[in-house]
Amino acid sequence: MPRTNKNFDSRKEQLIRLALEQFIDKGYENTTITDLQKSFGLTKGGMYHYFDSKEEILDDVIDYGLTQCVNELITELKSIPPEKKLVYFFFSSTANDFAQSLFRYSKKNSPSIVSYRLREKTVALTAPVLKDIILQYIETGFYKTKYPDEMAEFSLILAQAISEEDMLPKASLIHRKRRVDAIIDVWRKCMNPPAGHIHELQENLYKLIGFTIEGN
Amino acid sequence: MPRTNKNFDSRKEQLIRLALEQFIDKGYENTTITDLQKSFGLTKGGMYHYFDSKEEILDDVIDYGLTQCVNELITELKSIPPEKKLVYFFFSSTANDFAQSLFRYSKKNSPSIVSYRLREKTVALTAPVLKDIILQYIETGFYKTKYPDEMAEFSLILAQAISEEDMLPKASLIHRKRRVDAIIDVWRKCMNPPAGHIHELQENLYKLIGFTIEGN
Repeated sequence: MPRTNKNFDSRKEQLIRLALEQFIDKGYENTTITDLQKSFGLTKGGMYHYFDSKEEILDDVIDYGLTQCVNELITELKSIPPEKKLVYFFFSSTANDFAQSLFRYSKKNSPSIVSYRLREKTVALTAPVLKDIILQYIETGFYKTKYPDEMAEFSLILAQAISEEDMLPKASLIHRKRRVDAIIDVWRKCMNPPAGHIHELQENLYKLIGFTIEGN
Repeated sequence: MPRTNKNFDSRKEQLIRLALEQFIDKGYENTTITDLQKSFGLTKGGMYHYFDSKEEILDDVIDYGLTQCVNELITELKSIPPEKKLVYFFFSSTANDFAQSLFRYSKKNSPSIVSYRLREKTVALTAPVLKDIILQYIETGFYKTKYPDEMAEFSLILAQAISEEDMLPKASLIHRKRRVDAIIDVWRKCMNPPAGHIHELQENLYKLIGFTIEGN
Protein backbone atom coordinates (compact mmCIF):
# COMPACT_ATOMS: atom_id res chain seq x y z
CA MET A 1 0.00 0.00 0.00
CA PRO A 2 1.45 3.36 -0.97
CA ARG A 3 2.01 5.83 1.82
CA THR A 4 0.39 9.25 1.33
CA ASN A 5 2.98 11.43 -0.30
CA LYS A 6 2.49 15.00 0.86
CA ASN A 7 5.84 16.11 2.21
CA PHE A 8 6.37 18.46 5.10
CA ASP A 9 9.95 19.64 5.65
CA SER A 10 10.92 20.28 9.25
CA ARG A 11 10.53 24.08 9.06
CA LYS A 12 7.05 23.80 7.57
CA GLU A 13 6.18 21.14 10.13
CA GLN A 14 7.16 23.57 12.87
CA LEU A 15 4.93 26.28 11.38
CA ILE A 16 2.02 23.86 11.11
CA ARG A 17 2.39 22.98 14.78
CA LEU A 18 2.46 26.67 15.72
CA ALA A 19 -0.63 27.27 13.56
CA LEU A 20 -2.65 24.58 15.35
CA GLU A 21 -1.64 26.11 18.70
CA GLN A 22 -2.93 29.49 17.50
CA PHE A 23 -6.20 27.96 16.29
CA ILE A 24 -6.75 26.21 19.61
CA ASP A 25 -5.86 29.39 21.49
CA LYS A 26 -7.87 31.97 19.59
CA GLY A 27 -10.22 29.92 17.43
CA TYR A 28 -9.63 29.37 13.71
CA GLU A 29 -12.23 32.00 12.77
CA ASN A 30 -10.64 34.66 14.98
CA THR A 31 -7.05 34.01 13.88
CA THR A 32 -5.85 36.31 11.11
CA ILE A 33 -3.09 35.55 8.64
CA THR A 34 -1.14 38.41 10.31
CA ASP A 35 -1.51 36.70 13.72
CA LEU A 36 -0.06 33.57 12.18
CA GLN A 37 2.75 35.44 10.44
CA LYS A 38 3.73 37.09 13.74
CA SER A 39 3.62 33.85 15.71
CA PHE A 40 5.81 32.27 13.01
CA GLY A 41 8.32 35.14 13.32
CA LEU A 42 8.21 35.63 9.56
CA THR A 43 8.00 38.66 7.30
CA LYS A 44 5.04 38.93 4.94
CA GLY A 45 7.28 37.78 2.08
CA GLY A 46 8.68 34.92 4.15
CA MET A 47 5.11 33.85 4.94
CA TYR A 48 4.15 33.62 1.25
CA HIS A 49 7.10 31.31 0.68
CA TYR A 50 5.21 28.76 2.78
CA PHE A 51 1.50 29.58 2.55
CA ASP A 52 -0.80 31.63 0.34
CA SER A 53 -3.75 31.92 2.70
CA LYS A 54 -5.22 31.00 6.06
CA GLU A 55 -7.34 28.36 4.29
CA GLU A 56 -4.17 26.75 2.93
CA ILE A 57 -2.66 26.69 6.42
CA LEU A 58 -5.76 24.95 7.78
CA ASP A 59 -5.62 22.42 4.95
CA ASP A 60 -1.96 21.76 5.74
CA VAL A 61 -2.69 21.39 9.46
CA ILE A 62 -5.37 18.81 8.67
CA ASP A 63 -3.28 17.02 6.02
CA TYR A 64 -0.32 16.86 8.39
CA GLY A 65 -2.40 15.40 11.23
CA LEU A 66 -4.31 12.93 9.09
CA THR A 67 -1.32 11.81 7.01
CA GLN A 68 0.47 10.63 10.12
CA CYS A 69 -2.62 8.73 11.32
CA VAL A 70 -3.16 7.15 7.92
CA ASN A 71 0.47 6.09 7.56
CA GLU A 72 0.37 4.55 11.02
CA LEU A 73 -2.89 2.76 10.17
CA ILE A 74 -1.34 1.38 6.97
CA THR A 75 1.61 0.02 8.96
CA GLU A 76 -0.65 -1.54 11.59
CA LEU A 77 -2.95 -3.12 9.00
CA LYS A 78 -0.02 -5.16 7.66
CA SER A 79 -0.02 -7.32 10.77
CA ILE A 80 -3.82 -7.70 11.01
CA PRO A 81 -5.29 -10.99 9.65
CA PRO A 82 -7.03 -10.32 6.30
CA GLU A 83 -10.60 -10.92 7.45
CA LYS A 84 -10.10 -8.57 10.44
CA LYS A 85 -8.76 -5.68 8.35
CA LEU A 86 -12.14 -4.12 7.55
CA VAL A 87 -13.33 -3.76 11.15
CA TYR A 88 -9.83 -2.66 12.18
CA PHE A 89 -9.93 0.03 9.48
CA PHE A 90 -13.24 1.46 10.69
CA PHE A 91 -12.86 1.07 14.44
CA SER A 92 -9.23 1.26 15.47
CA SER A 93 -8.16 4.71 16.58
CA THR A 94 -4.56 5.58 16.10
CA ALA A 95 -3.72 9.21 16.60
CA ASN A 96 -0.54 10.85 17.82
CA ASP A 97 -0.62 13.93 20.06
CA PHE A 98 -0.87 16.43 17.21
CA ALA A 99 -3.80 14.67 15.57
CA GLN A 100 -5.51 14.18 18.93
CA SER A 101 -5.29 17.91 19.65
CA LEU A 102 -6.70 18.63 16.21
CA PHE A 103 -9.60 16.15 16.61
CA ARG A 104 -10.39 17.49 20.08
CA TYR A 105 -10.38 21.10 18.87
CA SER A 106 -12.55 20.20 15.88
CA LYS A 107 -15.07 18.30 17.99
CA LYS A 108 -15.30 21.06 20.58
CA ASN A 109 -16.00 23.65 17.88
CA SER A 110 -18.30 21.60 15.68
CA PRO A 111 -19.90 22.53 13.34
CA SER A 112 -17.19 24.81 11.93
CA ILE A 113 -15.06 25.11 8.84
CA VAL A 114 -12.46 23.03 10.69
CA SER A 115 -14.85 20.15 11.43
CA TYR A 116 -16.22 20.14 7.86
CA ARG A 117 -12.79 20.22 6.20
CA LEU A 118 -11.53 17.52 8.57
CA ARG A 119 -14.50 15.33 7.63
CA GLU A 120 -13.88 15.78 3.90
CA LYS A 121 -10.16 15.20 4.13
CA THR A 122 -10.72 12.07 6.20
CA VAL A 123 -12.66 10.62 3.27
CA ALA A 124 -10.03 11.75 0.75
CA LEU A 125 -7.08 10.32 2.69
CA THR A 126 -8.60 7.09 3.97
CA ALA A 127 -10.61 6.00 0.90
CA PRO A 128 -7.47 4.62 -0.84
CA VAL A 129 -6.71 2.48 2.23
CA LEU A 130 -10.25 1.10 2.35
CA LYS A 131 -10.17 0.51 -1.41
CA ASP A 132 -7.01 -1.59 -1.01
CA ILE A 133 -8.71 -3.73 1.63
CA ILE A 134 -11.71 -4.23 -0.67
CA LEU A 135 -9.39 -5.07 -3.58
CA GLN A 136 -7.67 -7.73 -1.47
CA TYR A 137 -11.09 -9.16 -0.58
CA ILE A 138 -12.04 -9.23 -4.26
CA GLU A 139 -8.78 -10.97 -5.23
CA THR A 140 -9.35 -13.73 -2.70
CA GLY A 141 -13.00 -14.12 -3.75
CA PHE A 142 -14.16 -12.88 -0.35
CA TYR A 143 -16.08 -9.87 -1.78
CA LYS A 144 -17.49 -9.10 -5.22
CA THR A 145 -18.01 -5.63 -6.71
CA LYS A 146 -17.26 -3.80 -9.92
CA TYR A 147 -16.76 -0.56 -7.98
CA PRO A 148 -14.07 -0.92 -5.28
CA ASP A 149 -12.98 2.75 -5.46
CA GLU A 150 -16.50 4.07 -5.38
CA MET A 151 -17.77 1.67 -2.71
CA ALA A 152 -14.83 2.75 -0.53
CA GLU A 153 -15.77 6.41 -0.98
CA PHE A 154 -19.50 5.84 -0.49
CA SER A 155 -19.00 3.62 2.57
CA LEU A 156 -16.89 6.27 4.26
CA ILE A 157 -19.37 9.06 3.55
CA LEU A 158 -22.31 6.95 4.75
CA ALA A 159 -20.39 5.87 7.86
CA GLN A 160 -19.76 9.54 8.63
CA ALA A 161 -23.41 10.32 7.92
CA ILE A 162 -24.62 7.92 10.60
CA SER A 163 -22.00 8.70 13.21
CA GLU A 164 -21.38 12.45 12.96
CA GLU A 165 -23.75 15.22 13.93
CA ASP A 166 -25.77 17.24 11.47
CA MET A 167 -25.03 15.32 8.25
CA LEU A 168 -28.44 13.71 8.64
CA PRO A 169 -31.40 15.01 10.65
CA LYS A 170 -31.39 14.17 14.35
CA ALA A 171 -33.15 10.86 14.87
CA SER A 172 -34.22 8.49 17.61
CA LEU A 173 -32.01 5.56 18.53
CA ILE A 174 -34.32 3.16 16.72
CA HIS A 175 -34.12 5.26 13.56
CA ARG A 176 -30.33 5.43 13.87
CA LYS A 177 -30.26 1.63 14.21
CA ARG A 178 -32.26 1.43 10.97
CA ARG A 179 -29.63 3.62 9.30
CA VAL A 180 -26.97 1.10 10.34
CA ASP A 181 -29.13 -1.76 9.02
CA ALA A 182 -29.62 0.12 5.75
CA ILE A 183 -25.87 0.67 5.29
CA ILE A 184 -25.30 -3.02 5.99
CA ASP A 185 -28.00 -3.80 3.40
CA VAL A 186 -26.17 -1.63 0.82
CA TRP A 187 -22.85 -3.24 1.70
CA ARG A 188 -24.35 -6.74 1.49
CA LYS A 189 -26.11 -6.24 -1.83
CA CYS A 190 -23.34 -4.28 -3.53
CA MET A 191 -20.24 -6.10 -2.19
CA ASN A 192 -21.47 -9.66 -1.56
CA PRO A 193 -19.51 -10.30 1.65
CA PRO A 194 -19.75 -13.54 3.66
CA ALA A 195 -22.56 -13.25 6.25
CA GLY A 196 -20.32 -13.53 9.32
CA HIS A 197 -18.02 -10.82 8.07
CA ILE A 198 -20.73 -8.21 7.65
CA HIS A 199 -22.25 -9.21 10.96
CA GLU A 200 -19.12 -8.09 12.80
CA LEU A 201 -19.21 -4.71 11.04
CA GLN A 202 -22.88 -4.32 11.96
CA GLU A 203 -22.28 -5.10 15.67
CA ASN A 204 -19.51 -2.51 15.77
CA LEU A 205 -21.69 0.11 14.09
CA TYR A 206 -24.43 -0.61 16.64
CA LYS A 207 -21.92 -0.01 19.42
CA LEU A 208 -20.79 3.22 17.76
CA ILE A 209 -24.30 4.71 17.80
CA GLY A 210 -24.97 3.40 21.32
CA PHE A 211 -27.40 0.64 20.40
CA THR A 212 -27.33 -2.50 22.50
CA ILE A 213 -28.90 -5.70 21.29
CA GLU A 214 -31.61 -6.80 23.71
CA GLY A 215 -30.45 -9.35 26.24
CA ASN A 216 -26.80 -8.23 25.97
CA MET B 1 -47.42 15.09 1.39
CA PRO B 2 -47.08 17.30 4.47
CA ARG B 3 -45.69 20.77 3.92
CA THR B 4 -42.68 21.63 6.06
CA ASN B 5 -44.01 23.30 9.14
CA LYS B 6 -41.47 25.87 10.30
CA ASN B 7 -43.41 29.11 10.64
CA PHE B 8 -42.04 32.54 9.97
CA ASP B 9 -44.28 35.47 10.94
CA SER B 10 -44.02 38.55 8.77
CA ARG B 11 -41.72 40.49 11.14
CA LYS B 12 -39.31 37.58 11.43
CA GLU B 13 -39.47 37.09 7.68
CA GLN B 14 -38.45 40.71 7.23
CA LEU B 15 -35.48 40.25 9.60
CA ILE B 16 -34.41 37.12 7.77
CA ARG B 17 -34.43 39.03 4.48
CA LEU B 18 -32.36 41.81 6.01
CA ALA B 19 -29.93 39.25 7.42
CA LEU B 20 -29.31 37.66 4.01
CA GLU B 21 -28.67 41.14 2.57
CA GLN B 22 -26.07 41.75 5.28
CA PHE B 23 -24.41 38.38 4.65
CA ILE B 24 -24.21 39.06 0.91
CA ASP B 25 -22.90 42.57 1.56
CA LYS B 26 -20.25 41.91 4.19
CA GLY B 27 -19.82 38.14 4.14
CA TYR B 28 -21.34 35.87 6.81
CA GLU B 29 -18.01 35.49 8.60
CA ASN B 30 -17.50 39.28 8.83
CA THR B 31 -21.01 40.09 10.00
CA THR B 32 -21.36 40.41 13.77
CA ILE B 33 -24.53 39.91 15.76
CA THR B 34 -24.32 43.64 16.59
CA ASP B 35 -24.22 44.51 12.86
CA LEU B 36 -27.39 42.46 12.43
CA GLN B 37 -29.08 44.00 15.46
CA LYS B 38 -28.37 47.50 14.11
CA SER B 39 -29.58 46.71 10.61
CA PHE B 40 -32.75 45.28 12.15
CA GLY B 41 -33.26 48.50 14.14
CA LEU B 42 -33.67 46.46 17.31
CA THR B 43 -32.37 46.80 20.84
CA LYS B 44 -30.27 43.97 22.24
CA GLY B 45 -33.29 42.73 24.18
CA GLY B 46 -35.52 42.98 21.13
CA MET B 47 -32.98 40.96 19.19
CA TYR B 48 -33.04 38.10 21.68
CA HIS B 49 -36.79 37.93 21.30
CA TYR B 50 -36.15 36.67 17.76
CA PHE B 51 -32.70 35.06 17.71
CA ASP B 52 -30.17 33.74 20.21
CA SER B 53 -27.09 33.79 17.99
CA LYS B 54 -25.68 34.50 14.54
CA GLU B 55 -25.66 30.74 13.88
CA GLU B 56 -29.39 30.62 14.59
CA ILE B 57 -29.99 33.50 12.15
CA LEU B 58 -28.06 31.65 9.44
CA ASP B 59 -30.07 28.50 10.11
CA ASP B 60 -33.29 30.50 9.83
CA VAL B 61 -32.13 32.17 6.60
CA ILE B 62 -31.42 28.74 5.10
CA ASP B 63 -34.63 27.17 6.47
CA TYR B 64 -36.68 30.07 5.13
CA GLY B 65 -35.17 29.83 1.64
CA LEU B 66 -35.31 26.04 1.43
CA THR B 67 -38.78 25.70 2.95
CA GLN B 68 -40.26 27.81 0.18
CA CYS B 69 -38.47 25.77 -2.51
CA VAL B 70 -39.54 22.49 -0.95
CA ASN B 71 -43.18 23.55 -0.59
CA GLU B 72 -43.19 24.67 -4.22
CA LEU B 73 -41.60 21.38 -5.27
CA ILE B 74 -44.25 19.42 -3.35
CA THR B 75 -47.01 21.36 -5.13
CA GLU B 76 -45.43 20.84 -8.56
CA LEU B 77 -44.87 17.12 -7.96
CA LYS B 78 -48.64 16.63 -7.59
CA SER B 79 -49.15 17.22 -11.30
CA ILE B 80 -46.15 15.15 -12.46
CA PRO B 81 -46.94 11.61 -13.68
CA PRO B 82 -45.84 9.06 -11.05
CA GLU B 83 -42.98 7.51 -13.03
CA LYS B 84 -41.52 10.98 -13.79
CA LYS B 85 -41.54 12.15 -10.16
CA LEU B 86 -38.10 10.81 -9.28
CA VAL B 87 -36.21 12.57 -12.06
CA TYR B 88 -38.31 15.70 -11.48
CA PHE B 89 -37.35 15.62 -7.81
CA PHE B 90 -33.64 15.48 -8.54
CA PHE B 91 -33.38 17.70 -11.58
CA SER B 92 -36.10 20.35 -11.54
CA SER B 93 -34.95 23.65 -10.08
CA THR B 94 -37.57 25.79 -8.47
CA ALA B 95 -36.26 28.70 -6.50
CA ASN B 96 -37.77 32.08 -5.78
CA ASP B 97 -35.63 35.25 -5.66
CA PHE B 98 -34.67 34.87 -2.01
CA ALA B 99 -33.51 31.27 -2.40
CA GLN B 100 -31.68 32.12 -5.62
CA SER B 101 -29.76 34.91 -3.86
CA LEU B 102 -28.89 32.51 -1.06
CA PHE B 103 -27.72 29.76 -3.45
CA ARG B 104 -25.66 32.25 -5.47
CA TYR B 105 -24.02 33.66 -2.35
CA SER B 106 -23.30 30.17 -1.03
CA LYS B 107 -21.79 28.99 -4.30
CA LYS B 108 -19.61 32.08 -4.68
CA ASN B 109 -18.22 31.63 -1.16
CA SER B 110 -17.85 27.88 -1.13
CA PRO B 111 -16.51 26.16 0.89
CA SER B 112 -17.82 28.09 3.89
CA ILE B 113 -20.07 27.50 6.88
CA VAL B 114 -22.92 28.76 4.72
CA SER B 115 -22.32 26.23 1.92
CA TYR B 116 -21.90 23.35 4.38
CA ARG B 117 -25.03 24.20 6.39
CA LEU B 118 -27.01 24.67 3.17
CA ARG B 119 -25.89 21.24 1.99
CA GLU B 120 -26.92 19.56 5.26
CA LYS B 121 -30.26 21.32 5.47
CA THR B 122 -31.02 20.42 1.86
CA VAL B 123 -30.77 16.75 2.86
CA ALA B 124 -32.85 17.28 6.00
CA LEU B 125 -35.66 19.15 4.22
CA THR B 126 -35.84 17.20 0.96
CA ALA B 127 -35.36 13.64 2.29
CA PRO B 128 -39.03 13.40 3.42
CA VAL B 129 -40.17 14.38 -0.09
CA LEU B 130 -37.95 11.77 -1.72
CA LYS B 131 -39.08 9.20 0.83
CA ASP B 132 -42.71 9.85 -0.11
CA ILE B 133 -41.90 9.26 -3.80
CA ILE B 134 -40.14 6.00 -2.92
CA LEU B 135 -43.11 4.96 -0.73
CA GLN B 136 -45.50 5.56 -3.63
CA TYR B 137 -43.24 3.45 -5.85
CA ILE B 138 -43.24 0.68 -3.25
CA GLU B 139 -47.04 0.77 -2.91
CA THR B 140 -47.51 0.34 -6.66
CA GLY B 141 -44.91 -2.45 -6.80
CA PHE B 142 -42.63 -0.25 -8.89
CA TYR B 143 -39.74 -0.33 -6.35
CA LYS B 144 -38.86 -2.69 -3.54
CA THR B 145 -36.90 -1.82 -0.40
CA LYS B 146 -37.20 -2.27 3.35
CA TYR B 147 -35.51 1.11 3.91
CA PRO B 148 -37.40 3.94 2.16
CA ASP B 149 -36.37 6.60 4.73
CA GLU B 150 -32.77 5.58 4.78
CA MET B 151 -32.45 5.10 1.02
CA ALA B 152 -33.87 8.62 0.58
CA GLU B 153 -31.26 10.03 2.95
CA PHE B 154 -28.37 8.01 1.50
CA SER B 155 -29.36 8.81 -2.10
CA LEU B 156 -29.36 12.53 -1.37
CA ILE B 157 -25.99 12.44 0.36
CA LEU B 158 -24.43 10.37 -2.42
CA ALA B 159 -25.96 12.63 -5.10
CA GLN B 160 -24.39 15.61 -3.35
CA ALA B 161 -21.10 13.73 -3.06
CA ILE B 162 -20.82 13.27 -6.82
CA SER B 163 -22.09 16.71 -7.81
CA GLU B 164 -20.65 19.11 -5.24
CA GLU B 165 -17.04 20.12 -4.78
CA ASP B 166 -14.81 18.74 -2.06
CA MET B 167 -17.07 16.06 -0.61
CA LEU B 168 -15.03 13.53 -2.57
CA PRO B 169 -11.48 13.95 -3.91
CA LYS B 170 -11.19 15.71 -7.26
CA ALA B 171 -11.38 13.11 -10.03
CA SER B 172 -11.19 12.81 -13.80
CA LEU B 173 -14.39 12.79 -15.84
CA ILE B 174 -14.11 9.04 -16.37
CA HIS B 175 -13.79 8.48 -12.61
CA ARG B 176 -16.78 10.76 -12.00
CA LYS B 177 -18.76 8.74 -14.55
CA ARG B 178 -17.86 5.61 -12.58
CA ARG B 179 -19.20 7.28 -9.43
CA VAL B 180 -22.53 7.80 -11.22
CA ASP B 181 -22.52 4.16 -12.37
CA ALA B 182 -21.77 3.04 -8.80
CA ILE B 183 -24.68 5.07 -7.37
CA ILE B 184 -26.95 3.59 -10.03
CA ASP B 185 -25.65 0.14 -9.05
CA VAL B 186 -26.52 0.83 -5.39
CA TRP B 187 -29.96 2.15 -6.37
CA ARG B 188 -30.59 -0.85 -8.62
CA LYS B 189 -29.54 -3.50 -6.12
CA CYS B 190 -31.14 -1.88 -3.07
CA MET B 191 -34.40 -0.54 -4.58
CA ASN B 192 -35.13 -2.93 -7.46
CA PRO B 193 -36.45 -0.32 -9.94
CA PRO B 194 -37.55 -1.17 -13.50
CA ALA B 195 -34.55 -0.90 -15.87
CA GLY B 196 -35.93 1.96 -17.96
CA HIS B 197 -36.66 4.06 -14.90
CA ILE B 198 -33.15 3.90 -13.54
CA HIS B 199 -31.75 4.53 -17.01
CA GLU B 200 -33.36 7.98 -17.12
CA LEU B 201 -31.86 8.86 -13.74
CA GLN B 202 -28.44 7.71 -14.94
CA GLU B 203 -28.61 9.81 -18.14
CA ASN B 204 -29.52 12.87 -16.11
CA LEU B 205 -26.67 12.27 -13.66
CA TYR B 206 -24.27 11.94 -16.61
CA LYS B 207 -25.47 15.31 -17.90
CA LEU B 208 -25.04 16.82 -14.44
CA ILE B 209 -21.36 15.88 -14.25
CA GLY B 210 -20.79 16.89 -17.91
CA PHE B 211 -20.40 13.39 -19.33
CA THR B 212 -21.70 12.85 -22.87
CA ILE B 213 -22.33 9.37 -24.18
CA GLU B 214 -20.18 8.77 -27.29
CA GLY B 215 -22.00 9.36 -30.53
CA ASN B 216 -24.45 11.80 -28.92
